[in-house]
Amino acid sequence: MSLTESVLAGNRLALARLLTQVENDSAEGRAALTELFPHTGKAHLLGITGAPGTGKSSLVNQLALHYRKNSDKKVAIVAVDPSSPFTGGAVLGDRVRMRDLAGDDGIFIRSMASRGSLGGIAQKTAAFVQVFDAAGYEIVIIETVGAGQSEVDVARLAHTTIVVEAPGLGDEIQAIKAGILEIADVLVINKADRPGVENTERALRSTLELAHPTRRVFRHHSQTISVPTSTVDPTIWIPPIDKTVATEGKGIAQVIESIAKHAAHLRRSGDWTARDRARMESEMETLLRETLMTRFLESVQQVKYEEMIEKVVNRHISPYEAVKSLLNGK
Amino acid sequence: MSLTESVLAGNRLALARLLTQVENDSAEGRAALTELFPHTGKAHLLGITGAPGTGKSSLVNQLALHYRKNSDKKVAIVAVDPSSPFTGGAVLGDRVRMRDLAGDDGIFIRSMASRGSLGGIAQKTAAFVQVFDAAGYEIVIIETVGAGQSEVDVARLAHTTIVVEAPGLGDEIQAIKAGILEIADVLVINKADRPGVENTERALRSTLELAHPTRRVFRHHSQTISVPTSTVDPTIWIPPIDKTVATEGKGIAQVIESIAKHAAHLRRSGDWTARDRARMESEMETLLRETLMTRFLESVQQVKYEEMIEKVVNRHISPYEAVKSLLNGK
Repeated sequence: MSLTESVLAGNRLALARLLTQVENDSAEGRAALTELFPHTGKAHLLGITGAPGTGKSSLVNQLALHYRKNSDKKVAIVAVDPSSPFTGGAVLGDRVRMRDLAGDDGIFIRSMASRGSLGGIAQKTAAFVQVFDAAGYEIVIIETVGAGQSEVDVARLAHTTIVVEAPGLGDEIQAIKAGILEIADVLVINKADRPGVENTERALRSTLELAHPTRRVFRHHSQTISVPTSTVDPTIWIPPIDKTVATEGKGIAQVIESIAKHAAHLRRSGDWTARDRARMESEMETLLRETLMTRFLESVQQVKYEEMIEKVVNRHISPYEAVKSLLNGK
Repeated sequence: MSLTESVLAGNRLALARLLTQVENDSAEGRAALTELFPHTGKAHLLGITGAPGTGKSSLVNQLALHYRKNSDKKVAIVAVDPSSPFTGGAVLGDRVRMRDLAGDDGIFIRSMASRGSLGGIAQKTAAFVQVFDAAGYEIVIIETVGAGQSEVDVARLAHTTIVVEAPGLGDEIQAIKAGILEIADVLVINKADRPGVENTERALRSTLELAHPTRRVFRHHSQTISVPTSTVDPTIWIPPIDKTVATEGKGIAQVIESIAKHAAHLRRSGDWTARDRARMESEMETLLRETLMTRFLESVQQVKYEEMIEKVVNRHISPYEAVKSLLNGK
């Protein structure tokens, strides 16, 4: 039996081995991805993101546990961990997680250090997701720690993006939220037993209201009529705000329900396919970039390349001129 | 007088206009970058980064003010703001900053929203830095909010990377620090009037000690000798830990001194040139990637490209096969 066949047959050891091949971008890994690809497209991809300190990992664990207890769904977790860009170590989570989730064959957790090239992380996450999808994991959770570009990548990859907040994280984080909110399909205020939860919720609601008006105002003769947005356009999704205390398992069922509702909304509105297509386009673009670069570097003489860098370092020519010259083979 | 000449002559309006051209990647912007490039290589580039809530922006303001008060150096600030990946708004800082720094012609602040392609941010930051460098700004501060890949990019761009911490930001942030610490040349504990500052300093010191041993142990016959690392190898830089209360201007002089010491160390050890070279290589690589992609997309038929995406979306071929097929012109 080939590695791919073993993975499709549900062999966990083969799955772990294949993920390593894929992470190392080996020829075997690439071939396997191609073989597995026709088996993908079934999983519901959840992106979970938010600022540090919001308790994302606990929430992810609880969601996974809930799916396992209350359904037959197999759950995979891809934890993109920016904690060590250089050593590639997974500092957080895995040991803690093992305690709750170990021994359940329906759960698979894999960390990925966010080292490597800019495109590399998104590309490998996409590849991991495909492997899990093909291997029959119905729920694939992509968890990213941090704030910024990585959130946007999660949004690109997932069907449903869950943004986690927590009370009392300070003003700067409040400001960052404004951007993250735009990619949220479901909002979770975790650590909801902490003081300040009402303020956090109020702030989220008013920011949300800017992005997704829940009511629309019409003028009819001299009268102003305010109508719920969902009445005007039932295809519009207003992100719900759910409150959880993940460490105690509180509020998890509500989040699961919001996720299910969002999935139903995506199917109904056609956005499920649209997001799938956007993901594929983005993945092809990343692959194209990488492949073009690899092929180019293979075709250019190392000596010539070094010469150009030398000229740039000495400010004889600009990087732009150097690139133009290299590409034109001058 | 051309736009480039005006910028070189110190015209602020021209500078602002040119930055916009560069941000929009216009033909005029590109041409100007090439013209300006021979004038670059003089500025000391400072990267300032750290987790949200550490008070980076206040620290940056105070550093800028200090340079202005105590030296003739012109200071430029490039604030890479991930707060809004989609709308591109600069939520933080600029208004607050204006109050302290307005009216000083020796300071120029420019925000950049971190929207756009993965490579785009790093590329545009690099371009901004070059413009400021050429325009005679001796200190160019690149400030990034967030945690993760953006920190690594800062490290690539800057001569001196300053990582800002603050007491009491929670466990998850502590874990993230381990990774960020590896790129730090100077560590600042801001908000040092807060409780827990001793704990933060102790944690930083023990993490630092792992990355940069301050003493080395040798065995000599039956004796163990512990020698300061700087005695063994004076070219090794041990990142200092400085404490500040930026909102009150406390501790800023010490940070400025650490930055100056690091610059002297870079010059002495040859690392100044090494970092300059690494930055140029990284920039050329980014430009190469972008240019290869642009040229490829111009050469391929839109219909053919759409067809391939369609095949991938329908799971007839994998993204990898689609890319191979497009590149081979099949």
